[in-house]
Amino acid sequence: MADVVIGGHEVRRRSFVDVAETQCGAGVLPRAVVTGTRERLTAWARNVRPGFATTPSSDGGTEAIRTNTLRSPRDVVRVLADDIRDFATRHDLERVVVVNLASTEPPLGQAGAFALEHSFSAALDGDGHRLPDSCLYALAAVETRCAYINFTPSCGISPSVLQARAVQAGLPYAGSDGKTGETLVKSVLAPMFARRALRVLSWTGHNILGNDDGRVLQNPDCKRSKVQSKSHVLGRILGYEPESIVNIDYVASLGEWKTAWDHVHFAGFLGAPMTLQFTWQGLDSILAAPLVIDLVRWADLAMRRGESGCLRHLASYFKSPLDVGEADFFRQWAMLERYATACASSDVTSQGTYNGRRDRAETPARIPK
Amino acid sequence: MADVVIGGHEVRRRSFVDVAETQCGAGVLPRAVVTGTRERLTAWARNVRPGFATTPSSDGGTEAIRTNTLRSPRDVVRVLADDIRDFATRHDLERVVVVNLASTEPPLGQAGAFALEHSFSAALDGDGHRLPDSCLYALAAVETRCAYINFTPSCGISPSVLQARAVQAGLPYAGSDGKTGETLVKSVLAPMFARRALRVLSWTGHNILGNDDGRVLQNPDCKRSKVQSKSHVLGRILGYEPESIVNIDYVASLGEWKTAWDHVHFAGFLGAPMTLQFTWQGLDSILAAPLVIDLVRWADLAMRRGESGCLRHLASYFKSPLDVGEADFFRQWAMLERYATACASSDVTSQGTYNGRRDRAETPARIPK
Amino acid sequence: MADVVIGGHEVRRRSFVDVAETQCGAGVLPRAVVTGTRERLTAWARNVRPGFATTPSSDGGTEAIRTNTLRSPRDVVRVLADDIRDFATRHDLERVVVVNLASTEPPLGQAGAFALEHSFSAALDGDGHRLPDSCLYALAAVETRCAYINFTPSCGISPSVLQARAVQAGLPYAGSDGKTGETLVKSVLAPMFARRALRVLSWTGHNILGNDDGRVLQNPDCKRSKVQSKSHVLGRILGYEPESIVNIDYVASLGEWKTAWDHVHFAGFLGAPMTLQFTWQGLDSILAAPLVIDLVRWADLAMRRGESGCLRHLASYFKSPLDVGEADFFRQWAMLERYATACASSDVTSQGTYNGRRDRAETPARIPK
Amino acid sequence: MADVVIGGHEVRRRSFVDVAETQCGAGVLPRAVVTGTRERLTAWARNVRPGFATTPSSDGGTEAIRTNTLRSPRDVVRVLADDIRDFATRHDLERVVVVNLASTEPPLGQAGAFALEHSFSAALDGDGHRLPDSCLYALAAVETRCAYINFTPSCGISPSVLQARAVQAGLPYAGSDGKTGETLVKSVLAPMFARRALRVLSWTGHNILGNDDGRVLQNPDCKRSKVQSKSHVLGRILGYEPESIVNIDYVASLGEWKTAWDHVHFAGFLGAPMTLQFTWQGLDSILAAPLVIDLVRWADLAMRRGESGCLRHLASYFKSPLDVGEADFFRQWAMLERYATACASSDVTSQGTYNGRRDRAETPARIPK
Repeated sequence: MADVVIGGHEVRRRSFVDVAETQCGAGVLPRAVVTGTRERLTAWARNVRPGFATTPSSDGGTEAIRTNTLRSPRDVVRVLADDIRDFATRHDLERVVVVNLASTEPPLGQAGAFALEHSFSAALDGDGHRLPDSCLYALAAVETRCAYINFTPSCGISPSVLQARAVQAGLPYAGSDGKTGETLVKSVLAPMFARRALRVLSWTGHNILGNDDGRVLQNPDCKRSKVQSKSHVLGRILGYEPESIVNIDYVASLGEWKTAWDHVHFAGFLGAPMTLQFTWQGLDSILAAPLVIDLVRWADLAMRRGESGCLRHLASYFKSPLDVGEADFFRQWAMLERYATACASSDVTSQGTYNGRRDRAETPARIPK
Repeated sequence: MADVVIGGHEVRRRSFVDVAETQCGAGVLPRAVVTGTRERLTAWARNVRPGFATTPSSDGGTEAIRTNTLRSPRDVVRVLADDIRDFATRHDLERVVVVNLASTEPPLGQAGAFALEHSFSAALDGDGHRLPDSCLYALAAVETRCAYINFTPSCGISPSVLQARAVQAGLPYAGSDGKTGETLVKSVLAPMFARRALRVLSWTGHNILGNDDGRVLQNPDCKRSKVQSKSHVLGRILGYEPESIVNIDYVASLGEWKTAWDHVHFAGFLGAPMTLQFTWQGLDSILAAPLVIDLVRWADLAMRRGESGCLRHLASYFKSPLDVGEADFFRQWAMLERYATACASSDVTSQGTYNGRRDRAETPARIPK
Repeated sequence: MADVVIGGHEVRRRSFVDVAETQCGAGVLPRAVVTGTRERLTAWARNVRPGFATTPSSDGGTEAIRTNTLRSPRDVVRVLADDIRDFATRHDLERVVVVNLASTEPPLGQAGAFALEHSFSAALDGDGHRLPDSCLYALAAVETRCAYINFTPSCGISPSVLQARAVQAGLPYAGSDGKTGETLVKSVLAPMFARRALRVLSWTGHNILGNDDGRVLQNPDCKRSKVQSKSHVLGRILGYEPESIVNIDYVASLGEWKTAWDHVHFAGFLGAPMTLQFTWQGLDSILAAPLVIDLVRWADLAMRRGESGCLRHLASYFKSPLDVGEADFFRQWAMLERYATACASSDVTSQGTYNGRRDRAETPARIPK
Repeated sequence: MADVVIGGHEVRRRSFVDVAETQCGAGVLPRAVVTGTRERLTAWARNVRPGFATTPSSDGGTEAIRTNTLRSPRDVVRVLADDIRDFATRHDLERVVVVNLASTEPPLGQAGAFALEHSFSAALDGDGHRLPDSCLYALAAVETRCAYINFTPSCGISPSVLQARAVQAGLPYAGSDGKTGETLVKSVLAPMFARRALRVLSWTGHNILGNDDGRVLQNPDCKRSKVQSKSHVLGRILGYEPESIVNIDYVASLGEWKTAWDHVHFAGFLGAPMTLQFTWQGLDSILAAPLVIDLVRWADLAMRRGESGCLRHLASYFKSPLDVGEADFFRQWAMLERYATACASSDVTSQGTYNGRRDRAETPARIPK
């Protein structure tokens, strides 16, 4: 990891050090980590450029950073791409991985999704349907020949037109929506019910959290994206759709402590109803961070191995894995193990392709309010 | 299942119908099930013979059914074996599967285990160390050429000397201790922590239950057997031993409602401590019954396929699978899937060997107070 | 209780026996209770008249029983009052207590509440704002000189114009919204935090239930009434308003099993944040029934003692006690103890006023879909 | 509080600052509190003298600080009393309150309790039964005319012979065992079940904690004291004894985070069984500290008001209040309110008796390993 350089786009006014200080004050990061990384964080902060965001903010308004002087979405993509190219040049980077870590966008809706697939170019010129911000970033990544990872439930590289461009350019990508807490546990427990022929009657999940992500989810549109991403897991694993409710509420006092209560009502032999409840108390960013690091490393490995298209073996990292129907965590994990075994026995990784000055860099693009 | 005949040994005074009525009154079984099966249960009850038990009962004394007139453990085995042979003959059975469903025995201790391995014949003659009751039943099963399943944490067929005899006789067997509730969830969740590099700091489990099994566990010796069987799962899955406490308490008011609270304290990225708690509210017998049926069918299949020795592919059914180190539920399950796939493609099962009047019968031997 | 006669208004097609059978099938009522009361329930069912209901039903439409031939709300009141008078005459009753047990209505809103207070007569004639159904029942109770109890969060006798009429007629009344489960626990635990100077930072409550009440609460308007009634308890007890979320979701599989998870985040000495969580698994009707019986007996006692107006000493029974600011359960209870002590030492109750053939009867008016 | 001076006896090697630093590192105390109080803590640490302890330590051995050169318990009391007198003289104190904050001692047993009452003087001379350490400290407090508070379940001033001496000397005292967490919630919830005629069938409580107190409770004898103190609350409040289990387990990883899971099984109307569970996650020291401060202030007030004997109005602070049968938290609280009201209207407190240089000081005597 020593040769990694971090940069990105950001719409908030807070620097890396600000965020680290806040997390330290909240008991999330040890003091030693903040002081030990301050210098590097400060250096990296110089790689951060203002981002674009037209997502409605939590107070109902919309923010727009740097958009007013630009004529069209195509112009936005051009500026983002220039930033990435500039970043790579200045640091003499061999490979760049773009990760979407921005707050959740509202879902597209059927009309929006149709437009995205069928009038992408027109939309890019500002004609007709608005393109989600996350797609502009994804396009900028593809145009600058970066690997791309969507760690959020936002649109990102989901449109097939964007995926096609990535494949054409020989680029790997993965998504969507990092599986960090309640959904992780869900994708682990649901297979147990399936294997033991315990019929899930209802699965009710209530999530409360108090960080920036939670604040954005106060916007009912954004919340809908998140809930959709969390909901479809059960049906895929169980083979039928039990009653299912997923709630997410913003509770400021909790800060980073994402707490989830899940109540599973299930029927055993002869229909006898029984119950499993769990409470998950996790620090959201602490759970997400190592997954992001892993994903960047897998994406980098894929680039070195000359792999392109959807990195399906990374399904276990995501709530809504692109191009993968399997939602069972352990079967997803087996996909990763098989991939890793194949890598281990192939020449590319044993020889390695490290010969540049710096081998890669990820740009975590942050857009949230 | 239509051609199955049930019999067994029992040390309690309650008949199958009595037990069904009790379970119905407690809301465990629907009334329709009890009325619909009364006739068959009554018929099967005629196949039940009084059992032997020297296990200390919950009130501190010991029960001994039919033992006083017998000279030695070897005599007990002979009587049990005669019962089984008689049962098979009367019903013209092709195959018999013996299942240990008796209450938990105290653990053997090091001296007892050593004696069992090294002076088995002497012990059988009543010389030296006492043989656990469950071993006498297991031996009777082997001597009458039955498959054997140990659904309890008691000794059963665990001694290598007994396993060797079963292998020599070409008989299949499996065990130990059906994985029905808290330990099942544990063997499902622990792999999640392992795969995500979340270090388990401590795992505390408290079980409360109020049925016969619970009453026997009030005996501290018996409880120790159970707790041992539940404890070793974590270390095997995680690769290290976290702090671990397993409690079992008898709470009469709960009846069949086995309730478990588990508190998992774990450390994430940079050591941040987090928590997962779950509460399991299950009906113990309802969870166990289908597993017993499955195991009998697998054992019967093994006999038809001519398999002998430990049925390692049944590990996912047990808390302490014989001869299998793997404790991860989904890896155990994969073993079963591979076996089932192999069976499906082999001749034996597609042709089948069904040609006798009745194809098999299981004898669930019950010994508890 | 032997001389009590039950009657009522009902908009559903189910008889008392039907409901009892359903509850028995769901494991809520023992079989013996249903068979033992069948005769009496059947007799009482003959006292039930079709009710009026314009509340939106859960599927978005509205139900109207017997309303189409009537010209105005005043006509509805007249018909209801005739039913009650007829009921009292036929059974030769001395006293009648009307209890509102109908499903929750949508809240009035500010405009509606204003109209209710200021143009009640006009509304009664069908001019201007619609009167909530529950107010028509309450008015019918007052006009027939019955005591009135509102066991729901609906409007009922809340309007001051209705309360004034009851007082003028010398009638007692009480409400609103029976405190059966989560809110009961809340009104018991919140005082603990107050007395120990533990500052509640946030209190999040999630309720799931699957009975008729739950189905009505799928209507967002009706849910709002319920949530309002549950929310104000904390502020009153604590003296400040912590973050507070109350959710209610319909989960059909749960039936009568109302399950609530509450997460209380609080700060202790020097601001240290801590947590209390509870899970309540209660049978809603089983919890409500004895409270309804108690309330009818208290209302009857009040009539015998010649008390009129709001029975403030019954505050501990309600989520939103009329005319009582105190929300602390134990202080509310102390009010009841003081009242009972005063009764015990007064002549009226020691002598009693029982001299009619039958002493009273309650009419539980049920309107839900 | 400005004129308070802190001193005490301590058997551990850690200073006040050491403890504060440890608690800060564990996230219990904010850094600012530690730095802001360092100077004062250091000054107070000079008032701490080595203590006496013959309690078995957690590793099975016993510790004895300063005991070997002393001939008898009477000598120990003399040394402790000299320490207290010296402390008061050096700081020119008007009043001293001694608080027992040491780790839990084993229970006395019947024989021990009898001996304590009937051969106290002999025991003091080292003849016959051993006196618990906590009684020696209590006696030293009485002999130096200090108020005394027992914040632990140890014996302390419980023997009637000691209480009589305190009364004779005109001294106030209170105890036993601070009610900080699970038992607090129990004494708040149990009255709810009683008032609502919900019959508690069983109440199971499991406590896990990882601090010094927890380590001492690994000693089965010490644990028994604690469990006894926690157990009798239910019977007193409910008027009958439900099944009740209280477990305490040491889980080192939790540190100060005392976590309790309570499962209450109760029967409602017509016997229907229902469940309430709660999980308490509290910082033990943070919950205890303000109670200790309060108790010292109440004891000081009692001295100023010339009150002697058991301060029964402080019952709400204790798990096992001396001389008070009432276990209902809110009734105990009402006792305190009545006392405070009486104080407010009396002359003594309005005038005050503050006229010395310093008005009082507490000596928290710490003995734990």
